[in-house]
This record gives sequence, C-alpha cells and structure tokens, in this order.
Amino acid sequence: VEVRDLGEFGLIDRLQKALGRPPGDRLVVGIGDDAAVWRSGDGFTIATTDTMVEGVHFLPGKVAWKDVGWKALAANISDVAAMGGTPAFALVTLCLPPDTPVEHVDAMYAGLAECAETYGITVAGGDIVSAREITVTVALTGDAIVGPDRKPHLLRRSAARVGDDVAVTGPLGASAGGLRVLKEGLAAQHPSLVESHARPWPRVDAGTIGVRAGITCGMDISDGLAQDLGHICRASSVRAELYLDRIPIDNNLTLAYPADAASMAAAGGEDYELILTGDAATLAAVDQALRRHLDLDFPQLHTVGRITTGHVGVVILDATGAEVDLTSRGWDHLRPGSHS
Amino acid sequence: VEVRDLGEFGLIDRLQKALGRPPGDRLVVGIGDDAAVWRSGDGFTIATTDTMVEGVHFLPGKVAWKDVGWKALAANISDVAAMGGTPAFALVTLCLPPDTPVEHVDAMYAGLAECAETYGITVAGGDIVSAREITVTVALTGDAIVGPDRKPHLLRRSAARVGDDVAVTGPLGASAGGLRVLKEGLAAQHPSLVESHARPWPRVDAGTIGVRAGITCGMDISDGLAQDLGHICRASSVRAELYLDRIPIDNNLTLAYPADAASMAAAGGEDYELILTGDAATLAAVDQALRRHLDLDFPQLHTVGRITTGHVGVVILDATGAEVDLTSRGWDHLRPGSHS
Repeated sequence: VEVRDLGEFGLIDRLQKALGRPPGDRLVVGIGDDAAVWRSGDGFTIATTDTMVEGVHFLPGKVAWKDVGWKALAANISDVAAMGGTPAFALVTLCLPPDTPVEHVDAMYAGLAECAETYGITVAGGDIVSAREITVTVALTGDAIVGPDRKPHLLRRSAARVGDDVAVTGPLGASAGGLRVLKEGLAAQHPSLVESHARPWPRVDAGTIGVRAGITCGMDISDGLAQDLGHICRASSVRAELYLDRIPIDNNLTLAYPADAASMAAAGGEDYELILTGDAATLAAVDQALRRHLDLDFPQLHTVGRITTGHVGVVILDATGAEVDLTSRGWDHLRPGSHS
Repeated sequence: VEVRDLGEFGLIDRLQKALGRPPGDRLVVGIGDDAAVWRSGDGFTIATTDTMVEGVHFLPGKVAWKDVGWKALAANISDVAAMGGTPAFALVTLCLPPDTPVEHVDAMYAGLAECAETYGITVAGGDIVSAREITVTVALTGDAIVGPDRKPHLLRRSAARVGDDVAVTGPLGASAGGLRVLKEGLAAQHPSLVESHARPWPRVDAGTIGVRAGITCGMDISDGLAQDLGHICRASSVRAELYLDRIPIDNNLTLAYPADAASMAAAGGEDYELILTGDAATLAAVDQALRRHLDLDFPQLHTVGRITTGHVGVVILDATGAEVDLTSRGWDHLRPGSHS
C-alpha cells in the first residue's frame, strides 16, 4: 500500500491511531480541527502548521517569491482565524536547494515580513535546511478568546446544529480563478484574480467577531466551500444543504469564467474566507458587527445553506431545489492529479 | 549569489534583517538561541522547529523509519531542554512522495509516538503534503520554569561570563561514530553507536535541574561541542578554552575509532547532551542534583573548559597547553559537502 492510496485524511487518521489517546488535561482540541488548542498558564494557545511545496502548492516561475512568503504565513493565519483566535508567533522553516538564488529567498522573506506586520505577528524562529526542492513550512501560534467562564471560546467544526444557517464571510472562487488563469497563461488579463490567489487575506476579524457574538461553529475555506462544509458535517454528524444560487461569487471570476463561476465558487480552494454556522439572529448580529468594524454598509455575511437532519454530508441544490453534482472534489494533496 | 554561498547562519541573519525589530512586549527570546520564548498568559512558552530531510539528515535505507520518527521529535526536545524548559506539545509535518510505502509512514509514526510518550509530549496536530522527497518537520512548544520573580528562568547562549567553567552532561562522539559506521558499512559490528546516532536522548532533566540550581547559560550539542561552544562565545562575546583531554568520550567510540575518538567527541554533531557554563560551585550542585535524580553515583557533569577574556571564539588546547586545530567544522547544512 502506498501513501497515494490513503490520501491526506487517511494518513492523518493513521497518525492519530498510532499516537493513541493524548495524555494530560491541557489539550482542549487535538488533531482534526483547523488548529490545535491547549491551555498555557491562564490562557489558551491555538497552534497550527501548514506547508507549501514548490510545484505542488505554488507554480514555480509563475508566482512571485514575495507572494509565496505572504501566502505561506497567510494560510496558517487562516487556520487560527478559523478557530476564532488571534495569531501571535510564527516559526518558519525553509528547505532550500543550495543553488537557490538568494534574491528569491530575500523576496520570500519580504513577503513573509509584510504579512507578519499586517497581522501583528512576530516571527520568533525557524530552521533552514538543505533539500532538493523548495518548501516553506510555517508553524503559527495564537491566542484563543477566553470567556468570563475562563474557558476558551472557539469556532469548532463539530458544533453545527440542526436548524443552523450556514454563512460565508465573502465572495468565493477568486483564488481558484487565479490558479486557472495562471495555468492557462492568462495572468496578464486577470491581475486581480492572480492577486486573490497569490495574496489571500485571512479573516481574523470575522473569526473573533463571530466568537464574541456567540458563534461556536466555523472553519476556513481552504479545500473549497463544498468540501469544507463536508468536514463540518462529518465532525458534527449532520447534513447540510448548500444553495448554489446563493453562494456569493467574486465579480472578477464571473467576468473571466461566466459559465464556470458558480461551480468554481462552490468548489474552488484557498479562498480563506470563513464558514460560520449558527442561528439566523446571531449570524445577523455578526454581519452588523462586521459592517461596523469594516465601516462598510453592505452585507458581510452571506447565508448559503442550512444544517438539517438526514444522511451526514453536503447536498448541493440549485434554484429549483434539484440536486447538483459537482464533480470537483477539492484538494486532497496526496492523490494523483491533485495540484494544490 | 546562491544560498550555498551564505550558508545556514548567513541566511538566518538575512531573515532577521528582513523581519526588523519584532513588535510587542511578549517576546522574551527571538531568533538566535536554541528556541524562542514568549509570554503566554501568566506563563512562558518555549518554541522551536527542526526538520529532517531524507538523504540530508538521515541516510535512506540505512536508518530504520521508526528511528527517523524518534529522532525528528528528539532533536526538537533537545532545543527545549537547551533553554531549560519542559516540552509539552508538538505539531508534525510530513512531506511524502505519493509512492511512499505506508509501512514506512506507520513505522515513523510509531517511533514518534514512542518518543512523545517517553517525554510526556502530546502531538496535537500537523500537516501532510505531497512532495518529491521525504521531510519530517516538528514544531515543539514547551514551558519555561518561572521563578518567584514571575520571570522565565532560562539557559541562554548569551549568558556566559568570564571565569565560568564549561561543563557537558555526558560522554560525546557516539552519534558521530554511529554516522561513520553507517557510512562505512560497519553498522552490524557497532550497534550501540548506531543506536546513539539514531535514537538520541535529549537532556530535559539536566536542563531543568541546571536552571533550578541557578545556571543561566547553556545550549545543546547538535553541531558538535567545539562549534556549539563557539555559538556561546559569540552570543556572550567571550573566549573559551576547551581542554581536549578532559572531554568525556563515549566508550564504544573509543573502541571503534581509538585514533579519532577525541576529535570526534570534540567536533562530532548530534550528541544532544547539554553544554552548561557557570561557577564551579553551582556546577557541582547541578552534578549532585543530577546524581540524586538519576540515582547514579558517578559524575554527571564533566568540566571541559573555561570562559576567559580574549579574542571571541573557542581555542582547543591539548594536555600540554598547545593549541589544537580541529579541521572539522561541524554541521552547516547548506554548504556543499555537508552531509547532516
């Protein structure tokens, strides 16, 4: 049996079994959510790690090194945001072939530093090793919001309840659009899509505002809305209906790929917006709080579905209520043919 | 300019400059020591990350996968021990070619789990990605000892003072001996050297006991005693004399390579013992405390040198007081010809 036969999630299951039940009482959230959470003194640490491999997670020669640095950190920030926390400290590991031009490394550092400064993160250490291919690994820790009950208030994948609405924090599909124009050699015509793909803006604001408003279920969209909502369904043992015609689509994506935009918004990865579930009133309160925070007078949360009883998983419905089959299955990094 | 021209330490300097001065007041120790330290609530987190690349840090086909898992975690534990802290939570990133046999991954997990259990560490998460070569990256956090002054009590590279003795926590060179017998095809004749190389035992005990006794300067031996003592000298702006005839040498190394054993003990990497500097009385107290802790009635600390005034750096002296030139310069991972 080879690694490709199990896929990423199969391997994670196997690791979990090998490790057995974690010892001690400090661990609040272990393997299986967007990030881990444990008690640190009188606070709670959120921790995650995410790797980008050249040729797998970014296209060599097509993406600026500066953007590789930004995105490597941003992907991790999104995992902390997905738990409702605030990022704080990063460790950065670079695997570099000895003949890597130093200007590439400098550009990567610059993008990383820019992202760190934007989000108030301190890069506190790391490791640099020789390797055959370029890999950037970031480990990021942050702080959970602690309630008056002295417990961490988090967004969990496992907290969706029947009757919840499902909302997303912004238009989707632009990152998938950017990847597509890069692959089709159309980057020059669609710079904003490329920008969305190369320099995502994780939603720390929406995560913390959601938690403070009382939302308890959420995750970030890294594999694609449909697939990530599926993770929530499995972790919460619920069914979700996703209404294809309600998914907000990035305007530039609609212009570039009008026929495919809806399905790309539903299934395309790396949007780094958040999915939040909760009752309609709480979600409306989050929308209002986000509008105030961003000083914007239009909707900041978009209801795209509903949590229901029934067979665990996501059902995508069109405007007539008919079930839609999206063949795209999102990113499972270890299966052949997967590209990101 | 290529990465190989700068080397690991040159690249780290460059990253530090790109990042500028870290914001905020939570960071206690940033880039440049064995691990980073920051405030977490009313405690202090120690954090480090360390990567092993197949063919660079371990020899494919010559080292058991189980041992790769053990050592990937152990190298990180040693960095936490080198700060005087106790390891607690790990994130594990695996880069795997899709055709990796799952039994290799299972064996690596088993070794990792064994090391985690031995040291009381919880593996709380990680990432698994597709890549062309196998890489195991661990990010490890731990807790610093907090004094009655509510400050973290740490072992720092920068705390050596003129007049300090330099001590090490055990016989050295066995790991370098193990690497050498593996390369020379003599593994079967020297299983204990291979074991020392493949399954190091980091010295969390010595680090915490040292800190509690009042030691403030230390680091772990990963690049080799002479080179690592050089890091202490540069960080502390001091000179150190290293007495070649006082360096404790692993018995099996002496048997295997009698002619080279002393220089291998002085320069060979990955021993994962600690260097501690301090006044003779404090070091003697640490030795006594370690003997009690381990229930062993022979010396646990070995004085191998002295911190002096003079040109910053390490001078190695033989029994006659003559200076010795060890050509081996330890591990600088990005220079050509470096193998570990």
